[in-house]
Amino acid sequence: MKKSFKALLLTGLALTIVSSGSLVTAKESTAKKPQSKNLIVLIGDGMGPAQVTAARLYSKTVLGKPSLALDQFYIGQATTFADRGEDGGKIVSGAVTDSASAGTAFATGNKTYNAGISVSNEDVSKPYASVIEAAELSGKATGLVSTARITHATPAVYASHVRSRDNESAIASQYLESGVDVLFGGGEQFFLSKDEKGKRSDKSILNDFTSKGYKIVRDGASLKALNSKTSKALGFFGSSHIAYTTDRDANTPNLATMTGKALELLSADKDGFAIMIEGGRIDHASHANDFPTTIKEMLDFDAAVKVAMDFAKKDGNTSVVITADHETGGLSLSRDNIYELNIDQWGKQKHSSESIVNALKEAASIDDIKKIVASNTAITDLSDEEAQQILDGDGSSYGREGGYNAVVSKRLLVGWAGHGHSAVDVGVWGYGPITSLLKGQIDNTRVAQASAQIIGVDLKKATEKLQAKHLYPKFKVTRDNAVLYPAQALAEALGGKYKADANAVIISKANKLVTINLSTLAVKHNGTEAAYKADLDNGKLYLPLSAFNHLTGKTLKWDSLSERIVLQ
Amino acid sequence: MKKSFKALLLTGLALTIVSSGSLVTAKESTAKKPQSKNLIVLIGDGMGPAQVTAARLYSKTVLGKPSLALDQFYIGQATTFADRGEDGGKIVSGAVTDSASAGTAFATGNKTYNAGISVSNEDVSKPYASVIEAAELSGKATGLVSTARITHATPAVYASHVRSRDNESAIASQYLESGVDVLFGGGEQFFLSKDEKGKRSDKSILNDFTSKGYKIVRDGASLKALNSKTSKALGFFGSSHIAYTTDRDANTPNLATMTGKALELLSADKDGFAIMIEGGRIDHASHANDFPTTIKEMLDFDAAVKVAMDFAKKDGNTSVVITADHETGGLSLSRDNIYELNIDQWGKQKHSSESIVNALKEAASIDDIKKIVASNTAITDLSDEEAQQILDGDGSSYGREGGYNAVVSKRLLVGWAGHGHSAVDVGVWGYGPITSLLKGQIDNTRVAQASAQIIGVDLKKATEKLQAKHLYPKFKVTRDNAVLYPAQALAEALGGKYKADANAVIISKANKLVTINLSTLAVKHNGTEAAYKADLDNGKLYLPLSAFNHLTGKTLKWDSLSERIVLQ
Repeated sequence: MKKSFKALLLTGLALTIVSSGSLVTAKESTAKKPQSKNLIVLIGDGMGPAQVTAARLYSKTVLGKPSLALDQFYIGQATTFADRGEDGGKIVSGAVTDSASAGTAFATGNKTYNAGISVSNEDVSKPYASVIEAAELSGKATGLVSTARITHATPAVYASHVRSRDNESAIASQYLESGVDVLFGGGEQFFLSKDEKGKRSDKSILNDFTSKGYKIVRDGASLKALNSKTSKALGFFGSSHIAYTTDRDANTPNLATMTGKALELLSADKDGFAIMIEGGRIDHASHANDFPTTIKEMLDFDAAVKVAMDFAKKDGNTSVVITADHETGGLSLSRDNIYELNIDQWGKQKHSSESIVNALKEAASIDDIKKIVASNTAITDLSDEEAQQILDGDGSSYGREGGYNAVVSKRLLVGWAGHGHSAVDVGVWGYGPITSLLKGQIDNTRVAQASAQIIGVDLKKATEKLQAKHLYPKFKVTRDNAVLYPAQALAEALGGKYKADANAVIISKANKLVTINLSTLAVKHNGTEAAYKADLDNGKLYLPLSAFNHLTGKTLKWDSLSERIVLQ
Repeated sequence: MKKSFKALLLTGLALTIVSSGSLVTAKESTAKKPQSKNLIVLIGDGMGPAQVTAARLYSKTVLGKPSLALDQFYIGQATTFADRGEDGGKIVSGAVTDSASAGTAFATGNKTYNAGISVSNEDVSKPYASVIEAAELSGKATGLVSTARITHATPAVYASHVRSRDNESAIASQYLESGVDVLFGGGEQFFLSKDEKGKRSDKSILNDFTSKGYKIVRDGASLKALNSKTSKALGFFGSSHIAYTTDRDANTPNLATMTGKALELLSADKDGFAIMIEGGRIDHASHANDFPTTIKEMLDFDAAVKVAMDFAKKDGNTSVVITADHETGGLSLSRDNIYELNIDQWGKQKHSSESIVNALKEAASIDDIKKIVASNTAITDLSDEEAQQILDGDGSSYGREGGYNAVVSKRLLVGWAGHGHSAVDVGVWGYGPITSLLKGQIDNTRVAQASAQIIGVDLKKATEKLQAKHLYPKFKVTRDNAVLYPAQALAEALGGKYKADANAVIISKANKLVTINLSTLAVKHNGTEAAYKADLDNGKLYLPLSAFNHLTGKTLKWDSLSERIVLQ
């Protein structure tokens, strides 16, 4: 909830109209009446079809629960593909998405390249507004909750914009500007400077949050103590990701607890709220091919689903949508031509494979490995071959942890195709009026459109507002630390024209000219020699911001943290 | 459409009531009015979530079609698990189903063990009626269409009952009794004696079909020539399964053509019809891990979906349900941590891997393998290592074919967990009134219940009728070719009581007694020494049919082909 003067004015306007007998505000009268006041989006990161079936089979066989909380809300499935883009220097088609591009799709309604956080797939990207940002603009309370770092891709797409998901310090800083009221998750390291054992090279930004009225909590008891008088809260339950369910201490809240508290705080806002809640570590466990932990993270997520659905049912004015960004690991519920699953063994691993990484690294012998495995699982008869397989590692960056998970998965009779994501469609679940917009076979972009429509917020308007502020160009930094931009792409993004012949490039906008001599790389601003030269790199022309300042007549600024040009 | 005297009587009754001004028959008045006159069930065998996504990605990327015919009809997903049972002598939980038990579930509404064809999971199994059998009883026209052998598990569960799916000769013979009007598929070998190059050890049964009025066709032209005056037709387009799409000659119809003709013939019946249409070879291609063929079989199935949906839309009185029995192969759309799929290469295999099995077997060198691969694919740069991997085979019964498919799949960037089925939920698609009964997360048994309800046929009544006729016991055959039955299970299935102490067993029903001396194994029928002895095998008592004839006062018969006891 943005308590700006403008928002107050809008509230005043709404109240005026209400008092004159109509329940429709001026803005709403031109659009469909919102069907829900509140929106809850739940994302199971990496929660493919097999992850869901596995959790249900475990629930049923081991826990005696016939179904998941999820099950009764199933309404359809979604395609997940991304746009074409680069992946480690190689161009990829986007057939297999990452969390950033999938998140951009279901948060903003637009496809982008893998790694893009709510920006367009262009050399000079434009920001796309998410349903959370649009809700914030409309005066609703907003929140983000995750078991991963709160700066990780899935929460990030809802309240920040960067060309690369890895820029988590910028994402943290952008949260401060976003107005998002409740942020619960891991990832405190991206709010702290290196001096404070954080990851930021600039400065700690926690004080900036407290100055804006955020209350900061760091354990389950403090989280519980928050009450609805707290309108802004920042909860950190891990320096990086929150520990896996099986590795958590008693002070670490689970996703259901964070969800319940976030809903309690946000629902105090009379304008309604929009929140995204992520089971962020299903993905991590599946990346590692740690099947028992995948199941436990699924159940942690499913418990949060129950809390959200119970709230929505009681509230009566809330739409809920649940989906996944993609499947992770290429999980198969059977392997090696055996028509069986050892479900009764699935719950017997004590802690995640991540928790024994160091022990596995230090193991010097087959016997060491056997001891580690016996202490963490029900496997007391590990063969020499299996122990050797663990010692050898699985050939991926997961090394011995990968070897351990390969051996355990084989015992449990489940298979993995790798440590990456896969392209299979993901499930969609829903409750409330939003279900009519999302049932059947959909693309993940539809989730964003339906989310905005159902609570009556305007993605287009919010996007226009963002695009008037920032551009996110590709850029290069010279040896002298000068920042240069792709001349044609940025000129065109700024509304200029770019004309090139064999000898020269002419960039123009209205009566402003920037000309570049391609032999000497000398630059002229309307005929006057500039103090800098152009840069030609692999046939592509780069220019500093000065060129574009001249072109636009503005004083553009470079935000080096968020790697964006500030337009106003 | 069964033209028995009883059926004619019922038709007469219905007509009488209709002519008196009511559209509701006597029977229907006690139940809900059927909402559809016709039912079309389409089954994609082995069509898991990844198979569907893969076909759509190929359709979109290579064929330029944005979606599958299937897509607009997606309504939910189904669990597929079977009952506990034996698999190759080992007890399995049923978590991973086969086509027989999955088919029994969606055809009859009952779970059974893997391999069971519409019989209960008991030592003495009872038959369960399918929606096709119930429709047949109600006077509707019925049909089965498959690209697999028509005696294969999925069609079999709809019109036959055997303890083991392998008993395909019995399944063929039971089709003769079933009244099913249209049977199009492969599998002529199970209708022909060994003398006629068939698989039957008894006799050819084709004449029995022609005597009952079936017209037999064996190629596309003859199929096309059938017109709606033909009410009973048997179409064989393969001795075993119909050739894969890519391996078919011009005389072999595709699934869409068979579907169109079957609908044309069946829709001539004014009482309506029920039909099951199977894309039977998606499963086979996925078992072999032949990914390009999996895609082609998916598209063959999807084209049949379009024909069925076009019919249903035009007809206006037809419900359609589409699902799969299970996923096959543990297919993953990505592998080896690479976020990419080589979709543009997916369609470049010329024929199925099955078609080059012999060539692969005969290959004597790496060069031979390279030639075979180059002639069947776009891969002209096969490495020595890849060729060697094919020569070595994949360690499964697929041998070099498995090696070939492993190499091709790796090139295409898709993964497989094995050659068997997996337990992931499968999709459900629908059209017409049946969709309201099947949307969301369901179990596959619900498909049968909804199918019967929507066309107003009675599964319970049809099942009672079948159970009054036959029992399907486990049995053993002695060295003298005597057939013996488990004493307790069969006695109890026949309504008798079984009492055992250390010395004797007493089996009773009303005033009939069968006593067995456990030391001598002598048997008495109400005190009179019987001419046979009991058999004790691993602590389990077995008796011949004579014992049960005495117990019931009936003359039970053993149908050795269908391995069932004939009760009446």
